[in-house]
Amino acid sequence: MKIVDLPTPCLVLDRRILQRNLDMMARAVARHGVALRPHMKTAKSIDVARLAAAVSGSGMVGITVSTLAEAEYFVAHGATDILYAVGITPQKLGDIAKLKAAGAEIIVVTDDPDVASVIAGHSAKLRALIEIDSGEGRGGVSFDDPVLIEIGERLGGSLAGVMTHAGHSYAGRTASQMREIAEVERGCVVRAAERLRSEGMVVPIVSMGSSPTAMHAVSLSGVTEVRAGVYMLGDLFQAGIGTHRLDDVACTVLASVIGRRQAEKRVLIDAGGLALSKDRSTQDGPKDYGFGLMLDVAGKRSYGDSIVRRAYQEHGVVECDPASAAMNLVIGDKVRVAPNHVCMTAAAHDRYYVVDGGDEVVATWTRVNGW
Amino acid sequence: MKIVDLPTPCLVLDRRILQRNLDMMARAVARHGVALRPHMKTAKSIDVARLAAAVSGSGMVGITVSTLAEAEYFVAHGATDILYAVGITPQKLGDIAKLKAAGAEIIVVTDDPDVASVIAGHSAKLRALIEIDSGEGRGGVSFDDPVLIEIGERLGGSLAGVMTHAGHSYAGRTASQMREIAEVERGCVVRAAERLRSEGMVVPIVSMGSSPTAMHAVSLSGVTEVRAGVYMLGDLFQAGIGTHRLDDVACTVLASVIGRRQAEKRVLIDAGGLALSKDRSTQDGPKDYGFGLMLDVAGKRSYGDSIVRRAYQEHGVVECDPASAAMNLVIGDKVRVAPNHVCMTAAAHDRYYVVDGGDEVVATWTRVNGW
Repeated sequence: MKIVDLPTPCLVLDRRILQRNLDMMARAVARHGVALRPHMKTAKSIDVARLAAAVSGSGMVGITVSTLAEAEYFVAHGATDILYAVGITPQKLGDIAKLKAAGAEIIVVTDDPDVASVIAGHSAKLRALIEIDSGEGRGGVSFDDPVLIEIGERLGGSLAGVMTHAGHSYAGRTASQMREIAEVERGCVVRAAERLRSEGMVVPIVSMGSSPTAMHAVSLSGVTEVRAGVYMLGDLFQAGIGTHRLDDVACTVLASVIGRRQAEKRVLIDAGGLALSKDRSTQDGPKDYGFGLMLDVAGKRSYGDSIVRRAYQEHGVVECDPASAAMNLVIGDKVRVAPNHVCMTAAAHDRYYVVDGGDEVVATWTRVNGW
Repeated sequence: MKIVDLPTPCLVLDRRILQRNLDMMARAVARHGVALRPHMKTAKSIDVARLAAAVSGSGMVGITVSTLAEAEYFVAHGATDILYAVGITPQKLGDIAKLKAAGAEIIVVTDDPDVASVIAGHSAKLRALIEIDSGEGRGGVSFDDPVLIEIGERLGGSLAGVMTHAGHSYAGRTASQMREIAEVERGCVVRAAERLRSEGMVVPIVSMGSSPTAMHAVSLSGVTEVRAGVYMLGDLFQAGIGTHRLDDVACTVLASVIGRRQAEKRVLIDAGGLALSKDRSTQDGPKDYGFGLMLDVAGKRSYGDSIVRRAYQEHGVVECDPASAAMNLVIGDKVRVAPNHVCMTAAAHDRYYVVDGGDEVVATWTRVNGW
């Protein structure tokens, strides 16, 4: 099947770009001699996870997930070492124990003393990382907060290590800022590990990472594992902050032109807020891409700055670059849209149509969405 | 099963409120003596469509859908009269013809002369409405544009009528503004029908509607059908523009507390940008609800103005009303979140857990997502 024969809207994944991105991150992490535990919350696909694991010298020790549905899916497809990197609740431990009984290790995360006691007291001998706040102000405790030691003591034999996520790196704009944030991220999580060790605790895992800090870190001394996920598929936001180049966006939304208004230099496409997501993360970046950048059906930037400026449920309004071939599009023509934030965009779609740089669909890979 | 035993995040649908909303719209439309063709793009559920059809005196003649997947799903569940209200492409007509062969009438929509010719020339004797722009500036032609007549002539025997959608009613803020927009919407679509009729064409369907204009219209003279959808489930945005009251939001997201920072008056919940959507449509309204308003597990407004201010992929950061019981929430506690824009929020979920005002889950209804 050819791309032009696909139903729209749908996701197109260029495997050649994906492979390049996987290789790039494997090299970036390998230079520090630490392990990679890629976050599958973006790709949500066993086929992508297998490609990541096959990268020579990737140092991949397992995967990271963001939902129980992902954990169950990857265990069903053979994964045995999974970090579930969203703060756990006592009610979810039963499902974690079931996955452990099926032969998989699911490491959970907490920043709460009471939950730590529940984890330690669970009959399934669960393991947990303590979440450290390295400046994002979302979850986690500060490395110098006395509660860190209390949580470690309460976890007892369930303590597997510490983790942090410098999500505020997304506010960084230059490579120099990314290096600084990565160093703060590293400093916080390593000092947390050292404090626990100074109290006699064993801290095997010291985990950090987002795609930008993993790419830009100068030192990962003291860190044992890096998590990153969005780098695999890439998006306009990550290109804007320098995690990868604009041509490294591997995942795009194929759409059909469903309306045109030449006088107003606009086309209407059948990819709207559901197919693209309502994410506006490029809004405050170096370039505001609205709800996405329109590419030609081959994924090339033939339409200049033709940007999806309005997104209704199933309609996207593209303001066309008047100097480009976008002005010649007619109803039924296929285009592709590079997403602002691919984690959000891809989640609306149940599969990837895979290409190898050309116009032939060479595979269909399913995704695990929902919870 | 009780609500508190549900996995989170998930959708909870209160059938008592849903029924109230269905009754309310049926009455609003019935006072004009026109037919209701509810838009199923919001609920995407045959169970909800059946409840709508069961309302006494609803005047429901069929349904409206926004995707081929919806059309196929509703036909598979017995629907026979469907308006597919997104501009059609020639490539999609094959699927429409298949549904027609299965016994269903799928009326398509176009605003393009060339597509009109393709529709008219199709062997399946398809029927189409011409889309009229009543001020939204998305799709459609102006009622006084000469191309209207050309499209009608090209459609020939396939011409089934005209339709418009005053989506710009969402920018209205008062009942008086809604009445004005509804009257403009009515005027444009009725005049389009009259122009076609004056050229000797038969125009049986004159369709308009959004939830706010359907609720507020003073006259629907000349209109034959009204489309509206979001009123069924309700959301914070529609409450803000007066389509319904805040207590008429039937569909909420059940979430678990996964973190708490009492000093910062914040809790973290396991409903983030995916479970709530990144929609920010209340941003410019009378009250900015961030990414949603946190309710208690029973769906009551016990937490005052506790609002989801930040939404990461799987984390929602709630700024708690310090005067409320939200400050006492602990990890694992369940809460509900009223959504900004329920069409976007519900689309991330594959089912509704249905309650009848109480804490017992009385049914599970599936949704048809994707394309």
